Amino acid sequence: MLRFDSDYMEVCHPAILQRLSETCLDKYPGYGEDDCCASAADKIRTACGMPRAQVTFTVGGTQTNDIVIDALLRPYEGVVAAQTGHIAAHEAGAIEHSGHKVLTLPGKDGKLMAHTLEDYLKTYFADENHEHMVRPGMVYISHPTEYGTLYTKGELEALHECCKRYGLPLFLDGARLGYGLAGRDTDVTLPDVAALTDVFYIGGTKVGAMFGEAVVFTGVPMPAHMVSIKKQHGGLLAKGFLLGIQYDVLFTDGLYMQISQNAVDRAMEVRELLLGKGYELLIDSPTNQQFVILPDEDLARLREKVSVAFWEKVDAKRTAVRFATSWATTPEQIRALAALL
Amino acid sequence: MLRFDSDYMEVCHPAILQRLSETCLDKYPGYGEDDCCASAADKIRTACGMPRAQVTFTVGGTQTNDIVIDALLRPYEGVVAAQTGHIAAHEAGAIEHSGHKVLTLPGKDGKLMAHTLEDYLKTYFADENHEHMVRPGMVYISHPTEYGTLYTKGELEALHECCKRYGLPLFLDGARLGYGLAGRDTDVTLPDVAALTDVFYIGGTKVGAMFGEAVVFTGVPMPAHMVSIKKQHGGLLAKGFLLGIQYDVLFTDGLYMQISQNAVDRAMEVRELLLGKGYELLIDSPTNQQFVILPDEDLARLREKVSVAFWEKVDAKRTAVRFATSWATTPEQIRALAALL
Amino acid sequence: MLRFDSDYMEVCHPAILQRLSETCLDKYPGYGEDDCCASAADKIRTACGMPRAQVTFTVGGTQTNDIVIDALLRPYEGVVAAQTGHIAAHEAGAIEHSGHKVLTLPGKDGKLMAHTLEDYLKTYFADENHEHMVRPGMVYISHPTEYGTLYTKGELEALHECCKRYGLPLFLDGARLGYGLAGRDTDVTLPDVAALTDVFYIGGTKVGAMFGEAVVFTGVPMPAHMVSIKKQHGGLLAKGFLLGIQYDVLFTDGLYMQISQNAVDRAMEVRELLLGKGYELLIDSPTNQQFVILPDEDLARLREKVSVAFWEKVDAKRTAVRFATSWATTPEQIRALAALL
Amino acid sequence: MLRFDSDYMEVCHPAILQRLSETCLDKYPGYGEDDCCASAADKIRTACGMPRAQVTFTVGGTQTNDIVIDALLRPYEGVVAAQTGHIAAHEAGAIEHSGHKVLTLPGKDGKLMAHTLEDYLKTYFADENHEHMVRPGMVYISHPTEYGTLYTKGELEALHECCKRYGLPLFLDGARLGYGLAGRDTDVTLPDVAALTDVFYIGGTKVGAMFGEAVVFTGVPMPAHMVSIKKQHGGLLAKGFLLGIQYDVLFTDGLYMQISQNAVDRAMEVRELLLGKGYELLIDSPTNQQFVILPDEDLARLREKVSVAFWEKVDAKRTAVRFATSWATTPEQIRALAALL
Repeated sequence: MLRFDSDYMEVCHPAILQRLSETCLDKYPGYGEDDCCASAADKIRTACGMPRAQVTFTVGGTQTNDIVIDALLRPYEGVVAAQTGHIAAHEAGAIEHSGHKVLTLPGKDGKLMAHTLEDYLKTYFADENHEHMVRPGMVYISHPTEYGTLYTKGELEALHECCKRYGLPLFLDGARLGYGLAGRDTDVTLPDVAALTDVFYIGGTKVGAMFGEAVVFTGVPMPAHMVSIKKQHGGLLAKGFLLGIQYDVLFTDGLYMQISQNAVDRAMEVRELLLGKGYELLIDSPTNQQFVILPDEDLARLREKVSVAFWEKVDAKRTAVRFATSWATTPEQIRALAALL
Repeated sequence: MLRFDSDYMEVCHPAILQRLSETCLDKYPGYGEDDCCASAADKIRTACGMPRAQVTFTVGGTQTNDIVIDALLRPYEGVVAAQTGHIAAHEAGAIEHSGHKVLTLPGKDGKLMAHTLEDYLKTYFADENHEHMVRPGMVYISHPTEYGTLYTKGELEALHECCKRYGLPLFLDGARLGYGLAGRDTDVTLPDVAALTDVFYIGGTKVGAMFGEAVVFTGVPMPAHMVSIKKQHGGLLAKGFLLGIQYDVLFTDGLYMQISQNAVDRAMEVRELLLGKGYELLIDSPTNQQFVILPDEDLARLREKVSVAFWEKVDAKRTAVRFATSWATTPEQIRALAALL
Repeated sequence: MLRFDSDYMEVCHPAILQRLSETCLDKYPGYGEDDCCASAADKIRTACGMPRAQVTFTVGGTQTNDIVIDALLRPYEGVVAAQTGHIAAHEAGAIEHSGHKVLTLPGKDGKLMAHTLEDYLKTYFADENHEHMVRPGMVYISHPTEYGTLYTKGELEALHECCKRYGLPLFLDGARLGYGLAGRDTDVTLPDVAALTDVFYIGGTKVGAMFGEAVVFTGVPMPAHMVSIKKQHGGLLAKGFLLGIQYDVLFTDGLYMQISQNAVDRAMEVRELLLGKGYELLIDSPTNQQFVILPDEDLARLREKVSVAFWEKVDAKRTAVRFATSWATTPEQIRALAALL
Repeated sequence: MLRFDSDYMEVCHPAILQRLSETCLDKYPGYGEDDCCASAADKIRTACGMPRAQVTFTVGGTQTNDIVIDALLRPYEGVVAAQTGHIAAHEAGAIEHSGHKVLTLPGKDGKLMAHTLEDYLKTYFADENHEHMVRPGMVYISHPTEYGTLYTKGELEALHECCKRYGLPLFLDGARLGYGLAGRDTDVTLPDVAALTDVFYIGGTKVGAMFGEAVVFTGVPMPAHMVSIKKQHGGLLAKGFLLGIQYDVLFTDGLYMQISQNAVDRAMEVRELLLGKGYELLIDSPTNQQFVILPDEDLARLREKVSVAFWEKVDAKRTAVRFATSWATTPEQIRALAALL
C-alpha cells in the first residue's frame, strides 16, 4: 500500500535518531532547562533574523494553540479565526476547554482576509451591546492554512497592520510552516513571518521531528511563568531536552528548509500527475497538500493500492481527497503512484 | 421620555410585591427547599399538563442556559444553536466559560430548522475525522427567538423528532416564553412546548417577575445534584423562596398568560402605528418585540422623546431599532407614542 | 416553630419593600446603568471614607467570590484561604469551576493569621520547584469568619502589610460584614476594612436585602469589562436597578448598621441564655452566630420547637449547633426561646 | 558531575532507539490507530493478567492525571487525594484547570489510608450541608508515592473495598510503577494493581521510555470518545505509534521489570552508602528514590561534584535531599558516588 494520507506518518528524520542514539545515556536537566533547548532557540532566533525573540518548545499543535491562546487572553476574551481554522473546526473543543470562544469569520480559501477582520472589529466596537458579546482578544491564522493555501506577504502585512491598530496580537499556527515557506511562488520568508506576526510556531511534528513545536514570541513578550502555564495545560514535557535536541538538528545546516523543499517538490509531481490524468483540483495549493476531485469509481479503485485522506463529498458521484507528501516522500514513491494512477 | 428599550425595565407586577409585603418577616428555609417553591412547581406542572415534570428555579437567563447546558453535556460535547442564538451571540462567553463550544448553524429569521440540523448531524457523523471535531451533545433553540419570531408546532415537532433520532436533548430558552405563547396566530401552547422539548424554561425576569426563570425537565430527567450544580455556577439563590413566591403568584389564576397577552396586544398596536406611518419592518414578529427600519433623521427626532434599542445599521441612511413592550406597557403609553410618531 | 437556622430566612427589610412598591412601574435602564446604582455607590463610598473607591453590585456570595477571584487572578494563579474559608469548604467547587485552586492554610478559629501566610509565602518562593506548584495570586479572608469570629484591626494590618510585601491583593468576604462591624468589642470599622483590604464586599443577602452584595475596590483598580466578566459568570442581573434600590435604602440614614446592631444584640441575649443554662460554647463569637454544644437529648427536645443549624458532632453524646439571629430577630423571639430552653 | 537529581534525565533505553531506527521511514496511521499500539496493549493486558482490560496511551504524567480524572468525573465532582499527592501539590493547577477540586486528606508517609478515607466519606455524607461541598467522585493514589513509599497489598485491598462501598473509582498514578513493583520487600504485583484499582497507569517517561504513560482501565469501562477527550486536553499525540513502539519494546521479554529492578538495586546501594556514612534517612523508601538528611556543610561539599534534588529544610542546619536512581544508573556511577561521599 502506497500511503499519502498525511505528513505525520514516519518516525522522524534519520539525523535526529542519529543524534539521539549518540546521546542516549547522557544525563540532562528536566523541563527544558538544558543546553540543547538553549542552542536550538539560538539557531531559531538566527533563522528568524530576530536576536531578541523568545522561544519555547511544546509537544503538539492543538496543545500549542491552547497554551498560547490561554496565555495571551484574559478569561473573557475570545480568539478570532477563519471558520475553517484548525482551532475552530478540528481541535475537539480544546480552546473552549480553557474557557475561550473561537470567534469565527468567513475566510477565502482558508485564509482570513484583513478587510473581513477590519469589518468585524468595526462592527463589534460600534455595537452598543458589545460588552454582552465575547471580546476579541487576539487573531489566529494558519500558514499554510488547513486547505494548503498561503498568505502573500502583502496579505500578512495588511493583517498585521489591522491587528496593531486594534491592539490585538496576531498568532500564526505554523504546524506545517516549513511546507509553507518552501511553497511554490511564495514571497513569504521565515523572517517575514517573524516580523509580521506577534507569536508563531515552527512545526516539527509534521516536518521531520518525532514531535514538537517551537513557539516564537516576536511582537509581544512571552507571558511570565510559561513553565506553570504549560504544566497546567498538561503540556510540560519532563524530558524537555528531547525537544531541544530535535530542533537543534533541524536548524543545523538548513535541514528544516531542505526537507521541507523535498515535500513540496514531491507534491508538485503529484499535482502534475493528477492534472495529467485530467482530474480537477478542489483548491489550488502550492504546498505539500494536494486536494483533488475524483469520480467515486476511480477513488475506489485507487484506494485498493493507495491510501489518501477523505476530504469531502463534492456531489453524489465525486469525492475530494487529499494527497499529502512529507519530508520523507521519495521520488520512487511518486513513480509508484504514477504507475498506479 | 417614553421608554420602549426592553421588557425588563420595571420592578415587577404589583401582585408579587403585594405578596412579598404580606410575608415580609416570615421565615423560610433556604436554597429553594420551601413550600412556595413546591407550590409554584405544582402549578407549573399543571399548566404544562405534565404531572411528572421536574421543576427548578434559577435567577436569570444566561445563568440558566449555562447551568442547564453544563448539567446535560459531557465536557467534550457542544451545544448546537442557530448563529443568532442568544448563547452564541450575547452571553459574553458564559457557555465557553463552562468549557463547551456552541456549534452554530445558519438559521431562518432566528430559527433553527430541522433540515439544517439534520444535514449538519448527518455530515458530522459521516466525517471520518469527527472525533477531532466537537461532538454535538444537545440542541438549543429560543422561543420567541432573538428576532421575536416563533416556531410553528410543526417546526417544533420536526426538530423534536430529529433530536430524538440522534439521541440529543432539545432545550428551549423561554426567557420570553409568555410573549411567545401569547403571540399572534401562534399554534404552540405551553403543553406543546412541554411535550416537544426535553427541557425548557419559563422566563420570569422579562414577564412580570423581578427576576427568575423556571426550568422544566420533561423529556430527560433533571440531573442529580442540581443544588451543587447551581451553586458551582454561582446560581444558587440563598433566599430561594423568593423565586417560589414570584412563580406562585404568576401561575395563580392565569396571571402569567394574562400579562403576556397585554404585552403582545400593545406590541401589535405599536406595529400598526409604525406601518401606518409607512415604515418598513425589519422582520415580521408576532410577539412583544417589533423591529422597524427608520431613516436616520426620523430616528434622531424620535429619540429626543422615545428610547428604543439600537438593532443594526441597515444602510448608510437607515437604522433598524427595536420597540419592546412588556406586561407593564399601558394603552396610554401607546397613545403617547402615537402622538409622537 | 421558632427559627434560628440562618440569617437569610426573611424576605427583606420593610423599608426596601416600601421603596420597591413606590417605584413598582417606573422604568429603569438595565444591567446596573441606572441612577439608583450610582446613588447607592456614592453612599457606600461615603460610608467607607473612600471617595475614589469603585463599587459594583452582584447577586449572592458564592457568585461574588467567583467573579472577584476570577477577575483578579491569571488562570494559573490560586487564591490563598484558611482551610475553613467559605470558598474552600462550602462553595461546591465554584472557584475550581473557574479554573483556580484554593490554596488552603491552617487557620485560628476560622481566621488566617499573618504569620501563617508569611511562612507559606516564604516557603513557596524558596522552593526550587515552585513553578510546578500553583502560584498564589491573591489572599481571601472572611469577616466575620465562617465561625463568627472577627479579625482585630491589628490582625488586619498585619495581613495587609504581608500581602503588600508580596504584591498580592487582599480580598475580604463580607457576606455578613454588618454583623462583624456591629460585633461586640470589635475595633474594626467600615473605613478600616476599606483601608486595610484591596477589595471587599458588603453583604446584603444576609443583612436586610432580598439579595445583593456590594463589591468595593479600594486598593486595586476594578478590572476592566466587569459587565462582560459578570455576564460570563452568569452573574449580571438584567434588572440591576433592584440592587441599586436595595443598597440605596440600606445606606440611607445608617439603616445597614442599625439593623446589624439588632442582630448582634439579640445574639448576645441568646448567648447569655445558653450560658445561663450551663451550656458550653464551641467557639467564642461576638457576632450574630452563636455556636453551642448540646447534649443530644437536650438537642432532640429543643428541636421539637426550635430550628437551629447542625454544625458538627462533638463526641458520641454531644452536638454543636448554630443559633443565628438576623436584622429581623425580635426581642419577643428571644423571650420565646428563653421560655423553651 | 555525577547526577542523581531525577529519574527522567536520559533519552531512553537503547532497545527503544534501536527499534525506532529500524522503522524510521516506515509509514504508520496516526493517533494511536496502529498495530504497534494494539500489540503493546495486548502485551500489557497479558502482563496484568486482565485479558479484557482497556489500554490507551498518553504522553506525560500530569496530562494523564488530568485526562483520566476529567474523563471519569462529572463537572461538580472532585477527586480525593493525600495532601502530598502529586495532583494536589505539584501539577500547577492542571486538575483545577479542568474544573475539579482536589479534596485532600492527611496521609501517612505519602499514603492515603483506608480508614482516613472512610472517615472522610462518612462525615461528608452525614453533613446536612454536603450538597454545598464538593462531592467526592473518585479517589487518587500514587504507587510509589511522592515519598517513594509503597502500599502493601492489604492496604490496597482496604482502599479498594472502601471505594467499592461508596461507588468511587480508585485511580492509581503509576508514573514510577516499575520502581514500585521492583521495590524491596513489596508484596504487590502488577496483577494485584490491576485487580485492586479501577484504572491505573504504567509510567514510561521515568522507566525507560522517552515519554509515555499506558493507562489501563480494569474496574470501570474506559469512557467513550477518548480520542476527543485526549485531544480536548491537548494530549492526543499525532504520531501515536511512537507510544505503541516504546511500550511494545518495554513489554517484550520482561524489559520493563528488568530495568526497574536495576534502579531499585542501585538505590539500595546508595542507601547503604548513606547509612554507612552515618546519615539519617528522612523517610524509609524501598524504591528508587532515597531521601537523606544532610548537614548543610556536607551538602555544599557534595554538590560540587554530585547533583541531587532539594527536598526540604529540616532545620536551621540540615537539609533533606533526594537521590534518584533510574533504569540507566550503573554500578560504576554508584562506585563513583561512594568515592565522593
